[in-house]
Amino acid sequence: MAAKLVLVRHGESTANRDNEFTGWTDVPLTSRGIKQAHCVGEILRWHHMQFDVSFTSFLKRAIITDNIILEELGQLWVPLYKAWQLNERHYGALRGLNKDYAREYYGVDKVALWRRSYIAVPPLLSHLESDNRYPEGLEPRGESLKMASERLIPYWSSEILPKLKQGKNVLVVAHGSSLRALVKHLESISDEDIDGLEIDNGEPILYEYNQKFSERIYLK
Amino acid sequence: MAAKLVLVRHGESTANRDNEFTGWTDVPLTSRGIKQAHCVGEILRWHHMQFDVSFTSFLKRAIITDNIILEELGQLWVPLYKAWQLNERHYGALRGLNKDYAREYYGVDKVALWRRSYIAVPPLLSHLESDNRYPEGLEPRGESLKMASERLIPYWSSEILPKLKQGKNVLVVAHGSSLRALVKHLESISDEDIDGLEIDNGEPILYEYNQKFSERIYLK
Repeated sequence: MAAKLVLVRHGESTANRDNEFTGWTDVPLTSRGIKQAHCVGEILRWHHMQFDVSFTSFLKRAIITDNIILEELGQLWVPLYKAWQLNERHYGALRGLNKDYAREYYGVDKVALWRRSYIAVPPLLSHLESDNRYPEGLEPRGESLKMASERLIPYWSSEILPKLKQGKNVLVVAHGSSLRALVKHLESISDEDIDGLEIDNGEPILYEYNQKFSERIYLK
Repeated sequence: MAAKLVLVRHGESTANRDNEFTGWTDVPLTSRGIKQAHCVGEILRWHHMQFDVSFTSFLKRAIITDNIILEELGQLWVPLYKAWQLNERHYGALRGLNKDYAREYYGVDKVALWRRSYIAVPPLLSHLESDNRYPEGLEPRGESLKMASERLIPYWSSEILPKLKQGKNVLVVAHGSSLRALVKHLESISDEDIDGLEIDNGEPILYEYNQKFSERIYLK
């Protein structure tokens, strides 16, 4: 029988609501985001999903979404691994900026490039910030999607994929860009074509794995 | 510097509220229990507790309490291990019974013995129930505190104690009886004296560890 991989982007955060760049800033869910997380749990229950293991990032909008989903499913006891490698792409100095303001300030084309291109690096933070959750010196000053992918895919390959190969059902709750990087990898989407992919808050995506991955299935 | 071990019994559950034996039944927190969990987070924040790792049981009243505490502390990213070995003592056929009813039915002395003695085994379930969270055949049919201790202490010794020896601060969220068994072990309390120990919902207990454990400290 095929193992199941479900990818979920966290529910709406305050930064999503306010149309701001976020990255590694640890913003909370809105009340709508919390409802979206419950709704994902509900959808997965209709599909009789039984998970063996779950993975999420170090950011509370993803961790809380994951816990709400597992609670709705009656599967809170399932092991949940939190990994900084699944964090959102680090948006550097764009972090906290309103996206419309950024377009005015930097220009529409540049902002579109930073948001959607695989290799464009956003303006970097001028210095590293200390956050004791990350190993010293780890927190990047800004990442292209490619740079985010280079820390995410090794973690995927060493920690998550082996579970699917063992036939386990896996839930991954992460972020808009970190999931784009993962979907790009799973479907071998080219650097050019990835800019067309958008993953919405609280929209669960299923892949079945049996030696290879099925097509992307949007669960409803 | 001494490593810190904080033990917390989950917030009030529906079974606590209704004065029922619970054990491995997966009952939810009451709204009061949820508030107690937030309050524990608040108390630990006053004490500037920074955890490196947390452990809880397979039961949602403990898992949710743990998540609420970590959320209140802004430390949701801390690794949280869920272990059936930290489950409440299995109350066998008493499970779900109102304690006053049990006293009428079985007699006051017998119920007191089952609740407080170290070695008394409650009436067993007539058959094992299947619950896919536990390895097949694992779920016991009823446990004395001693039997619970015999699965809890090996887990403590192999998984939790080594973290303290590494100087890590550890949060354990578990249950009235499983924490009694742990406190008995930590303080070398005799089989006879353990019947005097009661651990309340949402009352955090601190031990400092530096080669050996300090006295029990109730945090307020």
